[in-house]
Amino acid sequence: MDITFSNDPKLYILLPFIYFAWQDDLLANKEMKIITDLIDGQEWLTKAEKEFLKSKINTASPPARSELFHWREKINAALENTKPANLTELGILIANHEREAIKSEDISSLAGAFAGLESGLGIMSREVIAGFRQNRDTVTNKHSTTESFSVSKMTALLDGSQSEIINKVKELIGSEDLALDIPTDIMQYREKVLQWSKILADHGLGSYAYPKAHGGKDDIQGYFSIMETLSYHDLSLVIKFGVQFGLWGMSILSLGTEKHYKKYLKAVGSLELPGCFAMTETHHGSNVKGIETTATYDHTNRTFTIHTPTKYARKEYIGNAANHGEMATVFAKLMIDGKDHGVNAFIVPIRNRDKQPVNGVVIEDCGHKMGLNGVDNGIIYFDKVVIPYENMLDRFAQVNEAGEFETPIPSDNRRFFTMLGTLVGGRIGIPRSALAAGKTGLAIAIKYGDKRRQFGPEGASEVPILNYRMHQQRLMPYLANAYALHFSLQYLTKRFVNRKEDEMQEIEALAAGMKAYTTWNTRDALQECREACGGKGYLSENRIDDLKNDTEIYTTFEGDNTVLMQLVAKNRLGEFRKEFGEMNVSSIFNYVLEQAKTAVTEKNPFATRNTDEAHLKSREFHLNAFKYREKEIVTSAARRFKRLVDDGLDAFDAANVLHPHMMQIADSYLDRVILEQFQAQLDVVQDEGLKEVLERLYHLFALNKISEHKEYYLEQGYMEGSKTKAIRKLVSQLCWEIRQDAVPLVDAFNIPESCLAPIVTNKKGEA
Amino acid sequence: MDITFSNDPKLYILLPFIYFAWQDDLLANKEMKIITDLIDGQEWLTKAEKEFLKSKINTASPPARSELFHWREKINAALENTKPANLTELGILIANHEREAIKSEDISSLAGAFAGLESGLGIMSREVIAGFRQNRDTVTNKHSTTESFSVSKMTALLDGSQSEIINKVKELIGSEDLALDIPTDIMQYREKVLQWSKILADHGLGSYAYPKAHGGKDDIQGYFSIMETLSYHDLSLVIKFGVQFGLWGMSILSLGTEKHYKKYLKAVGSLELPGCFAMTETHHGSNVKGIETTATYDHTNRTFTIHTPTKYARKEYIGNAANHGEMATVFAKLMIDGKDHGVNAFIVPIRNRDKQPVNGVVIEDCGHKMGLNGVDNGIIYFDKVVIPYENMLDRFAQVNEAGEFETPIPSDNRRFFTMLGTLVGGRIGIPRSALAAGKTGLAIAIKYGDKRRQFGPEGASEVPILNYRMHQQRLMPYLANAYALHFSLQYLTKRFVNRKEDEMQEIEALAAGMKAYTTWNTRDALQECREACGGKGYLSENRIDDLKNDTEIYTTFEGDNTVLMQLVAKNRLGEFRKEFGEMNVSSIFNYVLEQAKTAVTEKNPFATRNTDEAHLKSREFHLNAFKYREKEIVTSAARRFKRLVDDGLDAFDAANVLHPHMMQIADSYLDRVILEQFQAQLDVVQDEGLKEVLERLYHLFALNKISEHKEYYLEQGYMEGSKTKAIRKLVSQLCWEIRQDAVPLVDAFNIPESCLAPIVTNKKGEA
Repeated sequence: MDITFSNDPKLYILLPFIYFAWQDDLLANKEMKIITDLIDGQEWLTKAEKEFLKSKINTASPPARSELFHWREKINAALENTKPANLTELGILIANHEREAIKSEDISSLAGAFAGLESGLGIMSREVIAGFRQNRDTVTNKHSTTESFSVSKMTALLDGSQSEIINKVKELIGSEDLALDIPTDIMQYREKVLQWSKILADHGLGSYAYPKAHGGKDDIQGYFSIMETLSYHDLSLVIKFGVQFGLWGMSILSLGTEKHYKKYLKAVGSLELPGCFAMTETHHGSNVKGIETTATYDHTNRTFTIHTPTKYARKEYIGNAANHGEMATVFAKLMIDGKDHGVNAFIVPIRNRDKQPVNGVVIEDCGHKMGLNGVDNGIIYFDKVVIPYENMLDRFAQVNEAGEFETPIPSDNRRFFTMLGTLVGGRIGIPRSALAAGKTGLAIAIKYGDKRRQFGPEGASEVPILNYRMHQQRLMPYLANAYALHFSLQYLTKRFVNRKEDEMQEIEALAAGMKAYTTWNTRDALQECREACGGKGYLSENRIDDLKNDTEIYTTFEGDNTVLMQLVAKNRLGEFRKEFGEMNVSSIFNYVLEQAKTAVTEKNPFATRNTDEAHLKSREFHLNAFKYREKEIVTSAARRFKRLVDDGLDAFDAANVLHPHMMQIADSYLDRVILEQFQAQLDVVQDEGLKEVLERLYHLFALNKISEHKEYYLEQGYMEGSKTKAIRKLVSQLCWEIRQDAVPLVDAFNIPESCLAPIVTNKKGEA
Repeated sequence: MDITFSNDPKLYILLPFIYFAWQDDLLANKEMKIITDLIDGQEWLTKAEKEFLKSKINTASPPARSELFHWREKINAALENTKPANLTELGILIANHEREAIKSEDISSLAGAFAGLESGLGIMSREVIAGFRQNRDTVTNKHSTTESFSVSKMTALLDGSQSEIINKVKELIGSEDLALDIPTDIMQYREKVLQWSKILADHGLGSYAYPKAHGGKDDIQGYFSIMETLSYHDLSLVIKFGVQFGLWGMSILSLGTEKHYKKYLKAVGSLELPGCFAMTETHHGSNVKGIETTATYDHTNRTFTIHTPTKYARKEYIGNAANHGEMATVFAKLMIDGKDHGVNAFIVPIRNRDKQPVNGVVIEDCGHKMGLNGVDNGIIYFDKVVIPYENMLDRFAQVNEAGEFETPIPSDNRRFFTMLGTLVGGRIGIPRSALAAGKTGLAIAIKYGDKRRQFGPEGASEVPILNYRMHQQRLMPYLANAYALHFSLQYLTKRFVNRKEDEMQEIEALAAGMKAYTTWNTRDALQECREACGGKGYLSENRIDDLKNDTEIYTTFEGDNTVLMQLVAKNRLGEFRKEFGEMNVSSIFNYVLEQAKTAVTEKNPFATRNTDEAHLKSREFHLNAFKYREKEIVTSAARRFKRLVDDGLDAFDAANVLHPHMMQIADSYLDRVILEQFQAQLDVVQDEGLKEVLERLYHLFALNKISEHKEYYLEQGYMEGSKTKAIRKLVSQLCWEIRQDAVPLVDAFNIPESCLAPIVTNKKGEA
């Protein structure tokens, strides 16, 4: 009788190894040899049996596919209702299945003999056996979207008092007139954006922030809501809108006086008079104080002559300049009788009504950009352009009847920053726009991740990619950030709208910081969204292309983020010094002790190792940890700065050494403000469903931030490794939980369907 | 006599405060009040003197600008050749300057009285005083580019044996025929890229890797050098080139047999026969095994019928498909008599010579993409397209004369992976292309940072932005990475070119990992480059736009990076298990102890706190730290996996929980390989100049990586906070030092000037 498995069922004991060897895609000759050696070593097998088994793992003579299929059926029959711990046990089960029972002494001897085999093959037995099974039901498979809260209530919470204007804008951008069909030709694109802007102006949106007397609604908060909501749509439109009605219009409102309002505001708000905000020069980007354009006063005819003295003093990146702008607010150094009176602002015509540049003005096109190609950025040169006396925006400085310079703010520096301060609104509008763009990206990526299936356990359906932990950990923290930033940008807006004079410095610093923080967050979030959508994310039709490339420059304009963060840090450091002076070591120590409190209460061994979930989820723990970081970083920066200067370094060099440290001052301050605002929001939410899901998002935000900075907490001894590991685990768990509510959470942004992507709206029947 | 400063010189003591109050842009009413209160508290002043001083800081009546100017002159005169420690001392100096001397008892009483003032104002006195000075010479100002090594020798080192082909390609891409003038119209762009490709083919570059018998040079290493060097130019060209000569041509070479070579290779290499590589389907991206397109064999006429059974099985993102491809290598499941024989490859005509789709083939355009718009990606549907028997690429499987399926590799899985394995070249070409694109970005950003000046100490010239520490820390680590990756991609290429059968698994895993690692590095590097160039970086003419958007998809195609990293990790985990089996706690412990060694030698208190610079710069320390991380992570992953499965979790679920951990397995493995290759390079460099600068780059690479993972080392207790802080400081110092060589270091890439940006080549006279 020939030796076969069915004739000699004990040989089945080796079948799982043999089947695995052929089925698996990774076993190489080396592993085949391990199995061969094992067979050779079995004393309970005859020589003929050994030869038979070895013939079954001979790479020169592989089994037929039908034979492989037959083996698989044997294995599956044995796996019904059993749970073998390893391949040897599985083999015994098959053998038993084939005859009454294998003798128990056989089993014990086998277990020993095969002990090293599975590890020698580098396999995890249970994993391999699970792979043999059909129809596996796993936790990963079954996880899915639920809706634990009312989406419409969440939308109402997010929109708050602004829901009316938000819905009005959503209706407009969802309408056929503003259908999101973006020409690749940039000239056509610019014209389309201009037309869109006119439609918005016709609906009264352009003049929202202007005084009622000049056709507006005197509603700056509404203006920000418009900017933000428009940002679900095309971002070139947002920037064109912002340039025309924000920068150009608001420069007149903030820097000019009644005579300018009367003359210009209505035409600006209706877009009859397109204009520019011409501040940045080629060689003076973030260092605006250094601009060189001159405005020379001539008392004989009471005019100013606007002039570009060198080519590097040309006005650059100016929105609305390349095609549409007819006038510009130009920032220039006022010269009277050869004396420099610092930067002032002037209204200068640049084009006539036929859109031809006026005499003395040369305009170049900035050309194709990474994004925002619907905005006509240009370069402007002035060659002795004469403007009348009344074109000086004279709120903060005037030339009097005698031709003398007059100002209530004699320091040029100070006057300049006062002027800029009135324009801080841009640093509120931009982060709010960035956040909206990030929300759109998240809505697309999360909805796609919920639908798109890829891979899965053998024998089961493919798994929605949002069920994969890595995928969750790429997107869920940004979803939490989106909610966190939403609340803090609301807070910033309210602070700005209700500002008092002596709060301005703080609000300006906060706005500068939130601008940098939010735009960087959007940059990173959209990067993850693109990758999370794979090849689909690369197709322009799915919008992440534009969202990403358009907002890319948000990190640079309205102040380079790195420069802004340094400003914020400088402000924080100044506040710190005011409070504590040029401190000595003991006063620093007391400061950290007394102010942060956590230094004593949290740095004891129990606290640094406390991994109790209730503790890790407690708001007090989060706030203490955030505050500790904020206060310790500013303290140590002040101390380092002093030490460096005491060591003889020039203050400028010392500041340079501290640059990276300064970034952390600003970052930790912003983290703390955002955390506090999220906590404040939780305190006022009434609805239980909303409260619960917001709590989860809050926990993810707080713990993810702590986790991002764990190297800091570990370095400081504020936490031990056991605690940071527990936090990482909790972050993973929170991502897993929030994934179930992720789709409703992005639905709550209530983004018009026309602003989402075909991959998620099913317009093209994709999935 | 009226009270004035000159009439009553002791009042000058307060002048620095008063001047500062008006000059500074930050002092608010609160601070003005502090000064007022101080004046009121001075018993050595008469009432009239107090009133005079207070009148000088009254915000309602600011000093004239001429007065401010006069004060400044007084201050500057006093500052000549003196170094007052604070504003009070400065005031005394001015007073002394005005009359013989102030009495010493006055001084001592003043020092006490003013003690709190400077801190109350939140100022750092030395900084303020430095701000008063004119013409400051600071370290930050003076730092600049030097050239400590021979650039041409460095280029020779980088190019090695490939310099001839590299220079040939550089000459071509620098020529007028390939002038980098990219149309925004995508149809024009695609035609231009096709023409460029033809020029390259005419120069014999297309067939470089093909056998000499079929018009090639049998030089795969040369092919990779071409791909890499082309990547300084337009990346659509690179991908078009890679699709035609790499994917399409190499699929014939790797999967077909002599009859296919004879019939096709020459026409492919000359670009007479443009073709596609049609693997990916809409619903089967990274999970290629799941593709559904069928190739049904009909024995009656010995044909295959290629068919797209559902719309989600259409071939998607296929390069060369939308416009130019005439044939395609199509991956489809071979069906014979209703039985599925797994994925096989077939040559299928898709267009006739008039570029019209053949019967049964429907081609759609993928449309506008985020980047690579010079590549005509398309979607292909097959409606029962009949192809002759010989069109099956039959190296790994055939249908025999009897109409039966035959293969030397019976497992479908295994055969499929063997087929894919032959195509691993793509995972070498892509990271090398990505690295070249990253080098171009770095060359632009670093040269720009060296020229562009912004801000600076008061009274001195503006500072090159590359002198700022933050700016250095954004760019220098990527410069070090570029060199590190260059050497390891050379290593990978050599391993691949000289591969032996039993090394294939390792090389495939390494290639997959290096592809993910390098493309992510390029993504991050180009992001920093864009921001580092500010608004200029946003203009398309300066190339970062295209470099960034074109390489963006590199993280997804040729295998999604996240999926690839999981594959690498799975391979590493398998290797680990082969070595150690399903370990128990003590064997793990021994493993870490014995293998990494560092566990004992490095974890002692002396080592974990050792901040000695020689230690921190020692190769042994780096290698130990990298190896410790690699081994500990794979060990703990194996342990966690086992624990989860032992706890009853399905293996698939357990693997999901471990996803983020798996990423770290792959990352730490790649870090270690790259470190070793950099070290190996240092061992062979002879030239002292090169050696020194490479040592510095090496130190930055090693310490920056350790710093990036310091949370890990701290968590593990492998380093203490004092050590990670010392490393951070050293990284900052290395960035500062390397900045001096940064321009020569990017010059050594020897990128054709035509491939750089106007902002650095001065074509447009910018700076």
